[in-house]
Amino acid sequence: MREELQRLGELPAITDDIIATYEAQSIINHIGSAALPSRDDTIRILDVLFEILYPGYFGEQELTKSNVTYVIGHKVSNLYDLLTRQIYRAVRHECRRSGATCEHCMLHSEYVAVALLRAIPGMRQLLAEGIEAAYDGDPAAKSYGETIFSYPGIMATTVYRIAHELFIREVPLLPRIMTEYAHSVTGIDIHPGAGIGHRFFIDHGTGVVIGETTQIGDDCKLYQGVTLGAFSFDKDERGKLVKGHKRHPTLEDRVTVYSGATVLGGKTVIGHDSVIGGNVWLTESVPPGTRVIIEHPELIYREGE
Amino acid sequence: MREELQRLGELPAITDDIIATYEAQSIINHIGSAALPSRDDTIRILDVLFEILYPGYFGEQELTKSNVTYVIGHKVSNLYDLLTRQIYRAVRHECRRSGATCEHCMLHSEYVAVALLRAIPGMRQLLAEGIEAAYDGDPAAKSYGETIFSYPGIMATTVYRIAHELFIREVPLLPRIMTEYAHSVTGIDIHPGAGIGHRFFIDHGTGVVIGETTQIGDDCKLYQGVTLGAFSFDKDERGKLVKGHKRHPTLEDRVTVYSGATVLGGKTVIGHDSVIGGNVWLTESVPPGTRVIIEHPELIYREGE
Amino acid sequence: MREELQRLGELPAITDDIIATYEAQSIINHIGSAALPSRDDTIRILDVLFEILYPGYFGEQELTKSNVTYVIGHKVSNLYDLLTRQIYRAVRHECRRSGATCEHCMLHSEYVAVALLRAIPGMRQLLAEGIEAAYDGDPAAKSYGETIFSYPGIMATTVYRIAHELFIREVPLLPRIMTEYAHSVTGIDIHPGAGIGHRFFIDHGTGVVIGETTQIGDDCKLYQGVTLGAFSFDKDERGKLVKGHKRHPTLEDRVTVYSGATVLGGKTVIGHDSVIGGNVWLTESVPPGTRVIIEHPELIYREGE
Repeated sequence: MREELQRLGELPAITDDIIATYEAQSIINHIGSAALPSRDDTIRILDVLFEILYPGYFGEQELTKSNVTYVIGHKVSNLYDLLTRQIYRAVRHECRRSGATCEHCMLHSEYVAVALLRAIPGMRQLLAEGIEAAYDGDPAAKSYGETIFSYPGIMATTVYRIAHELFIREVPLLPRIMTEYAHSVTGIDIHPGAGIGHRFFIDHGTGVVIGETTQIGDDCKLYQGVTLGAFSFDKDERGKLVKGHKRHPTLEDRVTVYSGATVLGGKTVIGHDSVIGGNVWLTESVPPGTRVIIEHPELIYREGE
Repeated sequence: MREELQRLGELPAITDDIIATYEAQSIINHIGSAALPSRDDTIRILDVLFEILYPGYFGEQELTKSNVTYVIGHKVSNLYDLLTRQIYRAVRHECRRSGATCEHCMLHSEYVAVALLRAIPGMRQLLAEGIEAAYDGDPAAKSYGETIFSYPGIMATTVYRIAHELFIREVPLLPRIMTEYAHSVTGIDIHPGAGIGHRFFIDHGTGVVIGETTQIGDDCKLYQGVTLGAFSFDKDERGKLVKGHKRHPTLEDRVTVYSGATVLGGKTVIGHDSVIGGNVWLTESVPPGTRVIIEHPELIYREGE
Repeated sequence: MREELQRLGELPAITDDIIATYEAQSIINHIGSAALPSRDDTIRILDVLFEILYPGYFGEQELTKSNVTYVIGHKVSNLYDLLTRQIYRAVRHECRRSGATCEHCMLHSEYVAVALLRAIPGMRQLLAEGIEAAYDGDPAAKSYGETIFSYPGIMATTVYRIAHELFIREVPLLPRIMTEYAHSVTGIDIHPGAGIGHRFFIDHGTGVVIGETTQIGDDCKLYQGVTLGAFSFDKDERGKLVKGHKRHPTLEDRVTVYSGATVLGGKTVIGHDSVIGGNVWLTESVPPGTRVIIEHPELIYREGE
């Protein structure tokens, strides 16, 4: 008992030691400035968007023709509030104007929030095509509903399409929080900056990496463990990495990349209608209609142990 | 302020545009029909089952001989309700009978729910063997409790065994929602249709894929990144994939497959007591007692950069 | 209706059958002994630690110089309670003393809880260096905040550093529950027993495995799918695995390992300033300053299908 009291008596001093480290300049402290975006609320935005994008599948499931206008109208209004608040926090964080609030950031946030809402009908068209591609492309798929409810490739691609809308409007922080949330749920790591065409399908998906400056055409298909990555990084005269230029490959229309394959480099273009085989390591362009496979390493068979 | 009001004024029109896309025929709309299964409640079913299957580990932890009948009796009753409701929604979705409710689907749901509850004692036997195999097979395992609390292979295999009970009784949607939930938590993608024997162990597990028609015997062991997959897909005369036949391999008893190996094809049989080495790519059967390794690509060593 | 009642009438018998399996000796029953740690509360400990380690980023976000002492003081006190309770449960589980409570275990739990709290300032220094390494090492990183909010390598390394503090103080169960939670969120599997130096960075990360006895120096960098694993397992005379000795490799300072590479064995030492190329399979030591690459399998190009 006495020792327990003694331990409790140490807590204020421990707190003081921790707070002392908050007072030093550090890149991991954010105290006394405008609040950063909330990761939880950013994920909540995705939840509400899934409910609007796939009506009857997520969230409120008992939608009828008589209640749909009210239910969705309410969700749209709620989404607008969530979006403006989180976009504001993100843009305010990078804005150099002083003052408690920034009117310019506020107007910009409202503008971007409305732009995202307006993009929903077009996004739904893209997503429906994606569901169809998943069902058609996977012999194990039993129904469209199964792919919507449970396919990680559908989840990751849906989140990517939402995050990309914010990325192209230069909203900081939120796009990457969104796609990394999808990465954590699905094992599929799509950078919000990538460009991805119609009827895209990723099967299984764990370990897929699609880098920031990747361009993917229509009707492409990836399997688990595929990397579309950077070949090497350029450094500036101070030895710091150069950011921003095209570092990741381009896939033209109707390209399939099988499991474990790696395609690297900003100048690498996989011509349309090509197939890249499992475990291929590719750092150069291939012309349209090419099938690239590897001589898999020869197997050595031994009896017993 | 005026602009903010103006933005808010746009929301009804945006809602109308979204709802207009709900009225078109689309595979991603589910409005005005019987409710689909709830993904959240399906995951809740798994939570309750984990509490019953591993008493004292998950959920209510202070179980004693005097309270256990009440606690578990309550959970079983709660589980029965959750199961009948979600199974009903799943089978109703595919049933073509008209009417607000379907008596036939209801009876079938109750029948399947009871069958799953009856399978629990046998499942517990299988799971206890699996825990022992994990502890024995991993030098890093410190206790049985550690494997139950934290091993992804145990989590994924437990969920697979539950989902498989529903899959063989032809319940739509739920089995795959369950195994894809486990996939999202563990990185291990086991199709509920696969057949898996006693004392199965997956170590680390991220990236493992076990396809729908895979058959795995007793005492098998897989490491991270192993694919048991389909070699190629047959298409029918209209160019659509043929679904349903055996596309994935068979592993007989006591087969170990090391990390990153890929075994493909419905006719590929790995004979009992075989070992498949890391990164092997295998598309043909091997006789019992075989050790298959690859000549790993020769390494090139360079000094400095 | 009559059949529904009949079904409900079966539940007590089903419950009895399940409870009968609880009475048998089984490694998956934990009834009537002191409560095991709670997985949920162990994850809650991580949540509170993230709020203290990265102030303003997680949890309470509106920190000011005037409220920070109260907010953090409250969190530290809350954390102390959570820690002592869960550490107590973990050490009590392995303690062989009889009686309802164990005074020795209680004192030890308080001691370890305070030790972890005292480690926070030093840990924050390590983490800030890690954030900087992530930002500098990834051309896609837009800001420090982005890496804190969304980089899986940062999340997994932070959790590892917390779990390692408990592991070296020999707390059972909790360290592995923590790192496997991070594994489930990030796809990165770091055993809490590994030793990892300053400015460590993992990019993308899905599929990374770092085994229990791995040693990693300062300024090392890993990409997705890298395994630092055991080469083979020694068995004792009864055929059981030998646990505890060094089975995983050592990476000296400034080593980079590219995606999909595998480094195995407790005697394997990668000399400082070495680079291990993508997909390399390495089971032997390399001297400092070596660049190891593979002759990637030759590609076979075919036109059309």
